[in-house]
Amino acid sequence: MTAPRLDGITDTLARQAIELPSWAFGNSGTRFKVFGTPGTARTPQEKIADAATVHELTGLAPTVALHIPWDEVADFAALRAHAEGLGVQLGTVNSNTFQDEIYKFGSLAHSDPAVRRTAIDHHLRCLEIMADTGSTDLKIWLADGTNYPGQDSMRARQDRIADSLAEIYDQLAPDQRLVLEYKFFEPAFYHTDVPDWGTSYAQVCALGEQAVTCLDTGHHAPGTNVEFIVMQLLRLGRLGSFDFNSRFYADDDLIVGAADPFQLFRILHEVAVGGGFDEGSPVRFMLDQCHNIEDKIPGQLRSVLNVQEMTARALLVDREALGRAQAEHDVLGANEVLMDAFQTDVRPALAEWRAARGFPADPVRAYAESGHQQHLAAQRADGQQAGWGA
Amino acid sequence: MTAPRLDGITDTLARQAIELPSWAFGNSGTRFKVFGTPGTARTPQEKIADAATVHELTGLAPTVALHIPWDEVADFAALRAHAEGLGVQLGTVNSNTFQDEIYKFGSLAHSDPAVRRTAIDHHLRCLEIMADTGSTDLKIWLADGTNYPGQDSMRARQDRIADSLAEIYDQLAPDQRLVLEYKFFEPAFYHTDVPDWGTSYAQVCALGEQAVTCLDTGHHAPGTNVEFIVMQLLRLGRLGSFDFNSRFYADDDLIVGAADPFQLFRILHEVAVGGGFDEGSPVRFMLDQCHNIEDKIPGQLRSVLNVQEMTARALLVDREALGRAQAEHDVLGANEVLMDAFQTDVRPALAEWRAARGFPADPVRAYAESGHQQHLAAQRADGQQAGWGA
Amino acid sequence: MTAPRLDGITDTLARQAIELPSWAFGNSGTRFKVFGTPGTARTPQEKIADAATVHELTGLAPTVALHIPWDEVADFAALRAHAEGLGVQLGTVNSNTFQDEIYKFGSLAHSDPAVRRTAIDHHLRCLEIMADTGSTDLKIWLADGTNYPGQDSMRARQDRIADSLAEIYDQLAPDQRLVLEYKFFEPAFYHTDVPDWGTSYAQVCALGEQAVTCLDTGHHAPGTNVEFIVMQLLRLGRLGSFDFNSRFYADDDLIVGAADPFQLFRILHEVAVGGGFDEGSPVRFMLDQCHNIEDKIPGQLRSVLNVQEMTARALLVDREALGRAQAEHDVLGANEVLMDAFQTDVRPALAEWRAARGFPADPVRAYAESGHQQHLAAQRADGQQAGWGA
Amino acid sequence: MTAPRLDGITDTLARQAIELPSWAFGNSGTRFKVFGTPGTARTPQEKIADAATVHELTGLAPTVALHIPWDEVADFAALRAHAEGLGVQLGTVNSNTFQDEIYKFGSLAHSDPAVRRTAIDHHLRCLEIMADTGSTDLKIWLADGTNYPGQDSMRARQDRIADSLAEIYDQLAPDQRLVLEYKFFEPAFYHTDVPDWGTSYAQVCALGEQAVTCLDTGHHAPGTNVEFIVMQLLRLGRLGSFDFNSRFYADDDLIVGAADPFQLFRILHEVAVGGGFDEGSPVRFMLDQCHNIEDKIPGQLRSVLNVQEMTARALLVDREALGRAQAEHDVLGANEVLMDAFQTDVRPALAEWRAARGFPADPVRAYAESGHQQHLAAQRADGQQAGWGA
Repeated sequence: MTAPRLDGITDTLARQAIELPSWAFGNSGTRFKVFGTPGTARTPQEKIADAATVHELTGLAPTVALHIPWDEVADFAALRAHAEGLGVQLGTVNSNTFQDEIYKFGSLAHSDPAVRRTAIDHHLRCLEIMADTGSTDLKIWLADGTNYPGQDSMRARQDRIADSLAEIYDQLAPDQRLVLEYKFFEPAFYHTDVPDWGTSYAQVCALGEQAVTCLDTGHHAPGTNVEFIVMQLLRLGRLGSFDFNSRFYADDDLIVGAADPFQLFRILHEVAVGGGFDEGSPVRFMLDQCHNIEDKIPGQLRSVLNVQEMTARALLVDREALGRAQAEHDVLGANEVLMDAFQTDVRPALAEWRAARGFPADPVRAYAESGHQQHLAAQRADGQQAGWGA
Repeated sequence: MTAPRLDGITDTLARQAIELPSWAFGNSGTRFKVFGTPGTARTPQEKIADAATVHELTGLAPTVALHIPWDEVADFAALRAHAEGLGVQLGTVNSNTFQDEIYKFGSLAHSDPAVRRTAIDHHLRCLEIMADTGSTDLKIWLADGTNYPGQDSMRARQDRIADSLAEIYDQLAPDQRLVLEYKFFEPAFYHTDVPDWGTSYAQVCALGEQAVTCLDTGHHAPGTNVEFIVMQLLRLGRLGSFDFNSRFYADDDLIVGAADPFQLFRILHEVAVGGGFDEGSPVRFMLDQCHNIEDKIPGQLRSVLNVQEMTARALLVDREALGRAQAEHDVLGANEVLMDAFQTDVRPALAEWRAARGFPADPVRAYAESGHQQHLAAQRADGQQAGWGA
Repeated sequence: MTAPRLDGITDTLARQAIELPSWAFGNSGTRFKVFGTPGTARTPQEKIADAATVHELTGLAPTVALHIPWDEVADFAALRAHAEGLGVQLGTVNSNTFQDEIYKFGSLAHSDPAVRRTAIDHHLRCLEIMADTGSTDLKIWLADGTNYPGQDSMRARQDRIADSLAEIYDQLAPDQRLVLEYKFFEPAFYHTDVPDWGTSYAQVCALGEQAVTCLDTGHHAPGTNVEFIVMQLLRLGRLGSFDFNSRFYADDDLIVGAADPFQLFRILHEVAVGGGFDEGSPVRFMLDQCHNIEDKIPGQLRSVLNVQEMTARALLVDREALGRAQAEHDVLGANEVLMDAFQTDVRPALAEWRAARGFPADPVRAYAESGHQQHLAAQRADGQQAGWGA
Repeated sequence: MTAPRLDGITDTLARQAIELPSWAFGNSGTRFKVFGTPGTARTPQEKIADAATVHELTGLAPTVALHIPWDEVADFAALRAHAEGLGVQLGTVNSNTFQDEIYKFGSLAHSDPAVRRTAIDHHLRCLEIMADTGSTDLKIWLADGTNYPGQDSMRARQDRIADSLAEIYDQLAPDQRLVLEYKFFEPAFYHTDVPDWGTSYAQVCALGEQAVTCLDTGHHAPGTNVEFIVMQLLRLGRLGSFDFNSRFYADDDLIVGAADPFQLFRILHEVAVGGGFDEGSPVRFMLDQCHNIEDKIPGQLRSVLNVQEMTARALLVDREALGRAQAEHDVLGANEVLMDAFQTDVRPALAEWRAARGFPADPVRAYAESGHQQHLAAQRADGQQAGWGA
């Protein structure tokens, strides 16, 4: 077999952009322990520099998402300049209303108007930052929920979230979007206020056309057909963005494609047939992962390459043959068309294509051989490694 | 402790109506085996008679749901008279588009217009039957889905379902409703066309105000917070009806309240606080169960009593105290208010109340002592016991 | 990239034998419906003929498992001769104690000694058949369990199973094995008497060295790490055989490798490193699947090819490099070594190798082009298609 | 209804002892945030004092489990005297090999002999502490596992755990036990080295008779029938102890009985019928919970009362009637016998019985009204609240 020809799909591949989360370059862990890793970034500036390294080696990661207040700096215009100087842009701003003591019982859903006020103001502050950074997406993941039945009124909380979101939505600039993420559980263990796509969908529809849903691939109940939700949100015009990662159990936040590569393929196939890779598509692609025990930069390199490789496979699906087999109810034949693309080893062709575009054929190896990781470990030996800031 | 006083809640309890499924009185089983049970009904008429027995002993089950074509008869007006003569009404009509060979690859979602036509016509036939029986709800559970990735286009199927439903919806009389059920999986094992409440919600919103959702308590992913969905659908005005049953694993269709009685309590608590028990509430309550190894009539008796007992507990929640504790973020206190109602043994008071209304204090024992089961076993010794008709 | 060289692994591949289940060539379905398929076998003889077709095209399926009483015939020696005439052997005998009315409440676990006697005798009858067919494995999957808490004593049932198995075990010939399968749930919905590998392990250890465990890949709780169990049972010397299939939700019995090909790879990797592919290994490989909507013979062809292709990938893992990376705690490096083998497209090399051995390069296509399916559909147009016999 | 008579069961209830975890009196949280709570203990001595408060009010919690190194003190004999002075004993010692940087890739399973040596030595140190504290159980929960397929050899790790445990086991005094806990997942997200009861059982059997299994009720896959495992481990003579808590999703560590009270009842019923409440039973009962947002002492009070109340219900099961119904395969009747006990409101009778023994009838209210929580909040306003020590 010769390497598969990528001719028909390189335009799409060349357009591919995967936003990196600044927090993936800091330490993370479980409730049991956050382990350190040599060379971990200590500041927002260093996190952005590490993200820029990933982009430099792959051309896949032109933007970096910020998390506020983890990435609060005195001068966001300067941070933007820092990023642009390194060849990347600042992207989505993620709000954080789960790490202050006042949020113990919720933020936008809290029954105390003063706490809600603080939480709403935090989002308005994020909009200000976005004006400075040039970001267009405000992504809201709420940790709000309860741990025990009866602890609070789920209905009242839902209504309060609607009101809080409306107040934030009203302040969006015309080119800005409010992106509402949902999550099955954690950190709340009885109920979560935005637990499923249906709730996010109902909430964003009530807000208006600038409100869309964020689908985090790890935020579903066991067994959920995630690609069905991708299809449905695309169909309903409300798929704003992805948070990519993978999981075997819960919200494990492992490297995208590491746990169930075939699921990633099916998701990207639905994106492809649903127009999510088309020019001008409103769908954005981000990583949201934790590299608890592995090196951060190589972990992000592996992640964007996994997305690229699986996107190539998804784009190689012979849709005409697939449609024919589907029309004939040829169950095995249709499945085989899909599996044929999945099983195609696109790595050699992608390596060639990367090299032709001036990137390393094997970015992971290039990084390893560059000595950059050792350099960082030496350079960043002192100071406080960045973490989740809890 | 004296028996809890039911004074404040008897009006609601007296209004309670739980629709029985005709098919619960026939045999059912798993893919491995359908076991017989002595005395099982053989005809729609006998199934209705058995349902009437449940109502006679409890006053809780004034209507019987039909399943078409399992309950097809030559003369539905006569069937209605038969039911009314026994003291019950004919209720929801459930369509069945999963047991003909033509539905092997779907019904309302099928890519073949001829199959869709047949499936739509079957629903129009159901509407005709409803005119004869006086039923107002057409309940649609679709077995449509696929077993293998790629087998069919999930998007095209979703659009075809929308079209098919619209054609059915257009024929509703002003007092009729289209009730769209969702189910996580089975009989399809890769994707189901209406797998979750979000999909049902999106579909019924697109149809119009006479379209609502049916929540089957066994049709969710593991770990799903079902009472949250109850709250949300009530909030969105689209909770049409319940299919009650219980499950430990998948869609086990066990007796409601048998697997997780506390979950049933939480669900009914959300119904109560969301207005679902109010006079004129559009929410209807049905059973959808399989008595694979236990006697059918006692199984249904146990089921309606479980719902009644748990409804009483849910209505006994001290909502004022609950609200106070919630407002103070008294996590344990609020939980205790809820648990106090759950742990209250309402059975003695309900027995008294039943007796006062002319019903047996213990309907299960009354049935056992009546010898009716033995009578049925003797009377129905020959002929074909009713089953799912597959 | 050139096709991967299979040089080092062809001995193992040439030895690979995957037993086909006779029942995969009959119709199957869900509790809702069993659909027919043109050309489906009508008799044990036809099922064996279909299995022989799979073997003829692939060289991968030299034996056929029987299910008793589904495959009861008057003369098993004749059936054996029939099989051998077609180029295959009769393999594992699977007992069935779940489809007679007397087994409504259990078989080997039943509290009635008479029912247990019947169930034990059925297994002794299976041993007789094995003497005629030359089979060495008696595989026992028990549907025993309960649907409601309290229905029976789980402890007493466990003890009765131990006693019943001991009586069967005592009748094994020296070269025969008792293989005890476990299953998470279904058809029982509250408790299953042999629900997990731990229970099967404890039971077979109590019996003796000729008792081993069967691991059905679809019989686990959601999220279970199946390859860990493979490793553990191999380590403990009790992995007798596999029942291969795949699932998205419960025991879906889909084509092996169809739902999560990476899981299949990981399982086969553990088999490889644990010695399960070594010459003389006691581990046997079978399919246990349901082709509810797809053609049976092509479904089995696809299945054995999936196992072959994934076995090749598993055998291609560079274990030396893997061990090195593991020793250095190079998390990403070790994972990459594994993924590299998984992502390698072994299909071209396998096609060449097949052709070199006198088999069709593409057995699925060869079968499709042979017209055999159409021939069978015409030839078997009348009579009763084989099914599960319920 | 009159309050149920507890006459026949008070001996058992009077014997009931539930060990409290010292760490439940410190702060805990999720990976996202650990919230503080006024009055939280700051030292091992204060944690023991808080545990003693729970025992004083209930008589249910005579021992306190320690976690090493969280509860390391200079003088364990003095700590023991402190505890005894407060009316409680020091109980199980829990080892911790998951919070040092050297354990990033494992402890007893680590491939580096030096790390294993450190981990083994930590357990030997725990045995020394046990000699001082009078503890007889060394409980081992291992966080060991991997996050990515291929990261390490699961088989080699399993063998290394066996070796490490054997070295620890060899140092047990004759009256000491090694108790091996298992856990489905977390903090490892691909594989856990002791993930299920089967693995713990195989490991403890290999060690000897002083090794037993600890069943943490929150450490199972979704849908697992936990009471079956209780039955099986009792039957096999290896149920050493329980870690009680409850969960809706994963290892949520909520208050025991809060999420699924009926499951707790079924578990305690199996304990009862399996002899686990008998005098001299080797089964020990502990809590292992996290009070992330609720007050600690009231959380522990609620927990031991939940266990007591549910134990009373389990002991009230009419086992004779149950056995009769089971023998007759009266599915609904047998289930009703069980449910009758579950639905019995034992709270009034227990309140009377408590009062008769000199305890507050309502310990939760007594604590609330005592002002002790306010006192602690004032007294412990400064200093560092105890936490998990990560």
